[in-house]
Amino acid sequence: MLFDSEIDRVVRTGIPLTGTAPWKALAAHHREISDVHVRDLFVADGERHERFSLEIEDLLFDYSKNRVTDETVKLLLDLARASGVVEVAKAMFSGAKINWTEDRAVLHIALRNRANTPILVDGEDVMPKVNAVLEQMRRFTDDVRSGRWKSFTGRPITAVVNIGIGGSHLGPAMICEALRPYHDGPRVRFVSNVDASDFVEAVRDLDPAETLFLVASKTFTTSETMTNAHSARRWLVEALGDEAAVARHFVALSTNREAVAAFGIDPDNTFEFWDWVGGRYSCWSAIGTAIAVAVGFDRFAELLEGAHAMDRHFQEAPLEENIPVLAGMLDVWYRNFFGTATNAVLPYDQYLHLLPAYLQQGEMESNGKSVDREGNRVAYATCPVIWGEAGTNGQHAFYQLIHQGTSLIPCDFIGVVNSHNPLGDHQEKLVANLVAQTEALMKGKTAAEVEAELRAAGRDEEEIKRLVSHKVFEGNRPTNTILLDRITPRSLGLLIALYEHRILVQGVVWRINSFDQWGVELGKVLAGTILEEEKELLAGEEVDLGHHDASTRALIERYVERQQKG
Amino acid sequence: MLFDSEIDRVVRTGIPLTGTAPWKALAAHHREISDVHVRDLFVADGERHERFSLEIEDLLFDYSKNRVTDETVKLLLDLARASGVVEVAKAMFSGAKINWTEDRAVLHIALRNRANTPILVDGEDVMPKVNAVLEQMRRFTDDVRSGRWKSFTGRPITAVVNIGIGGSHLGPAMICEALRPYHDGPRVRFVSNVDASDFVEAVRDLDPAETLFLVASKTFTTSETMTNAHSARRWLVEALGDEAAVARHFVALSTNREAVAAFGIDPDNTFEFWDWVGGRYSCWSAIGTAIAVAVGFDRFAELLEGAHAMDRHFQEAPLEENIPVLAGMLDVWYRNFFGTATNAVLPYDQYLHLLPAYLQQGEMESNGKSVDREGNRVAYATCPVIWGEAGTNGQHAFYQLIHQGTSLIPCDFIGVVNSHNPLGDHQEKLVANLVAQTEALMKGKTAAEVEAELRAAGRDEEEIKRLVSHKVFEGNRPTNTILLDRITPRSLGLLIALYEHRILVQGVVWRINSFDQWGVELGKVLAGTILEEEKELLAGEEVDLGHHDASTRALIERYVERQQKG
Repeated sequence: MLFDSEIDRVVRTGIPLTGTAPWKALAAHHREISDVHVRDLFVADGERHERFSLEIEDLLFDYSKNRVTDETVKLLLDLARASGVVEVAKAMFSGAKINWTEDRAVLHIALRNRANTPILVDGEDVMPKVNAVLEQMRRFTDDVRSGRWKSFTGRPITAVVNIGIGGSHLGPAMICEALRPYHDGPRVRFVSNVDASDFVEAVRDLDPAETLFLVASKTFTTSETMTNAHSARRWLVEALGDEAAVARHFVALSTNREAVAAFGIDPDNTFEFWDWVGGRYSCWSAIGTAIAVAVGFDRFAELLEGAHAMDRHFQEAPLEENIPVLAGMLDVWYRNFFGTATNAVLPYDQYLHLLPAYLQQGEMESNGKSVDREGNRVAYATCPVIWGEAGTNGQHAFYQLIHQGTSLIPCDFIGVVNSHNPLGDHQEKLVANLVAQTEALMKGKTAAEVEAELRAAGRDEEEIKRLVSHKVFEGNRPTNTILLDRITPRSLGLLIALYEHRILVQGVVWRINSFDQWGVELGKVLAGTILEEEKELLAGEEVDLGHHDASTRALIERYVERQQKG
Repeated sequence: MLFDSEIDRVVRTGIPLTGTAPWKALAAHHREISDVHVRDLFVADGERHERFSLEIEDLLFDYSKNRVTDETVKLLLDLARASGVVEVAKAMFSGAKINWTEDRAVLHIALRNRANTPILVDGEDVMPKVNAVLEQMRRFTDDVRSGRWKSFTGRPITAVVNIGIGGSHLGPAMICEALRPYHDGPRVRFVSNVDASDFVEAVRDLDPAETLFLVASKTFTTSETMTNAHSARRWLVEALGDEAAVARHFVALSTNREAVAAFGIDPDNTFEFWDWVGGRYSCWSAIGTAIAVAVGFDRFAELLEGAHAMDRHFQEAPLEENIPVLAGMLDVWYRNFFGTATNAVLPYDQYLHLLPAYLQQGEMESNGKSVDREGNRVAYATCPVIWGEAGTNGQHAFYQLIHQGTSLIPCDFIGVVNSHNPLGDHQEKLVANLVAQTEALMKGKTAAEVEAELRAAGRDEEEIKRLVSHKVFEGNRPTNTILLDRITPRSLGLLIALYEHRILVQGVVWRINSFDQWGVELGKVLAGTILEEEKELLAGEEVDLGHHDASTRALIERYVERQQKG
């Protein structure tokens, strides 16, 4: 039994995904529609935009510039239904152990369950624990922000450094950047990479006597994080001259209270979370403490409320009006039927510049899998590569390929109406560029249009012949547009949760476990071995590297030799 | 005639690329080799690492963990030869107009031609002009760094802000980050996005009386750059109270002296470059002024020297030992024969964190094309999507998909032996992780290995059965490892030029023009139209939006309406 018998009935039919009726119907439909140009669909249908747009609060999701018809949407929703999307979502919200390889519930939704309805795991309601940690976060961040939290030397804290990596880094870092206009607490910095340069640059201008470190590691054993934490500890103790300072300058976001205490952190300053909070879904938990320090706990609570509003939409809206479901099924449509390999995330707001990196983890670590629920290797593509940069920067970098390259790249354009920094006509230009890109990618420009334009510009026929094909745009490049009135904690919560549920939808259709990450283990183990070997070699010991391939061996030897030369 | 008759003879054979003998030989060879595991190739051949590694100065290029044999390399080089790689490279270095759609030479190599050998364009040696601008850059940056350059109020300059986008941004920004340990001049900042938040955050803590702006735009008409430049101008003039201050606080990196003068910049403070410097290849030109401000002109010259060393290697090394040729042909091998869609760039040095974004432009804007030299649509894939993040951060984010996803993703691992910030065992750990990842991606882990491990750990048979397939790693994931002794201006020059020439190699094989960028035009034109419409609507005028599709229309209307509500 994977989740429970009701879900099993739906999801374990014994039929390979590509053999199911909805999949075959989509394959047949794709053959019919693959040459249809969206430009023509807009001409033929005056209601297309209304029908293919949805709203929740101030978030508009316009998917009308996709290569879909009513029939496509119907068939995609058939596939979603047949795949058990509804049942698995329901199971997640009810606390069922849908992370079946690790036998865990998946309850980031509990962390922002502002309705406070009970959610049972193994018969126990998790909400009292959730609320207790939120209350602890409120007290702590209020104290730090107000100056009631005194440093070892009695001074207030003016800088907070979050030390964490992966899920303990990308969420808080992305959100702190996105909410920069709301910052009214101490400076917040982030250290993640084990490269010492990351730590050194982050603390270069900080005063140890006024700096507080948040060490974010579920297990408190993550190699990169603990290496940085120990360097931070040395930096602090050397400056303040007393080991006892650690307790006033370090807190832990962790589940391992014993290791936290051994580090010198007061167990009362440990912010707990639970095995049902996956790293890449943890920004809503104690891992979000840096956010609450930067913008205050009330703003952090608004972030949770926005996410909770999306949770309710995802649970309650019929599939036809369900934004995460439609977005997720469009992803399946392109990946599996058009054979696309990447999705671009293009935020038209500088404060959202870390969103692509955040979603890279969110989607690729969740759905970059190739084994299905039965333990079989899948016979279809799963997660594409997620990438992107802030527009308009991307326009001057890689949009060339999106417009005229040989690969079809579905894009999410994420825009904001009102800037937090209204200045001249910057915002009009920014939004004009966003909208124009979606128009250009969809419409394209035909050879006849190019020729007419060149002729009107007085170019001679030989030049026209030479240039015309280079200036043609095929168009028919699919885009979603997500437009917010303004980036607020609440609207950001809506946006992030939209992507989280979209990931779930994809994963259910692909029959994979979106909540484990076995693929990170092997490299970790081998790095441990190689580190030992490097250290022994650097200490002048004999080491047998014969178990490595010749390249790995040579790289280790070169590193040691060149390191010793300095 | 495209370039000149000799090249034409080689590259215009009238045979479609996929019909040439080397291509067909590679296709046949791929069928033979596609199931071969590199793990086995290493076991069978003790010399594999030596044979498939190359060095230039302190740069090691280890390509032995690729899915290639001696035969593969031979066939790839046959294709390179038959495609005219040698001839086109020679043409580029000689000043021939290999950018045929724009009828321009391609001479970023002249900008770093430290041998100063004459390079003729239309019969004129470009080197005297190149050297004159370099000399002008030296004087200017020496003046700014020494404090001889006085601000309007007579104070020295303590902050320099580069305003530019795309090629006028990514190169200097990436290089300034990479060389941060060498910074000994004024603070250097970058503004690129038309989003006002980019400008506002960049100048928030700067003193106008001590700030100098570099406005980097070849044409001095780039919308984003000029919008930011005008906002910077207002910010300055409002603070200093005098239009005359502009001349002491702005310089231009541009070819349009007239527009520069109209802005209020002293024409003597205009740093020129030429139509044979492509934006994405321009960091070696006056566009690199920010770099010379940050690290000094002598260091900037070392950067040029490193690139020049790679230029000579590219020109002189036989194809079998030619790093850019081999790297570029490996890209072709995966893209066209394995059907890969993306390449990951994974720098294991925090200071190189902008390298993936830089190469995104370098590769995707250069080779994201689909029209060949004859003006025909190509029948094969060209440039893949380039993406990546600094390791170890990426390991905790998206490596899951690289290890266990359904897509094959060739990766470049770029590492550095000696850190500029030696601290504890951070560097040993960083390098151990890099090497371990290349080992893990190549070797993988078989089901038998996983089972043995789980059994040794005392797991019961049911659990083993449930987990084993999730813990299997197929391996055979190809990687290049590029290892430098240390990041110096010179080694960075080598590295960047390696990628530049690799892009040329790909483009020649794919028969596309790597040096134009027609694909950015359409969006620009449409943005201009939409901006006008937005402004008219915001001013309360009637505007006919009927020429847009319904989605574009609705987005414009929604923006205007919600903007007015504020």
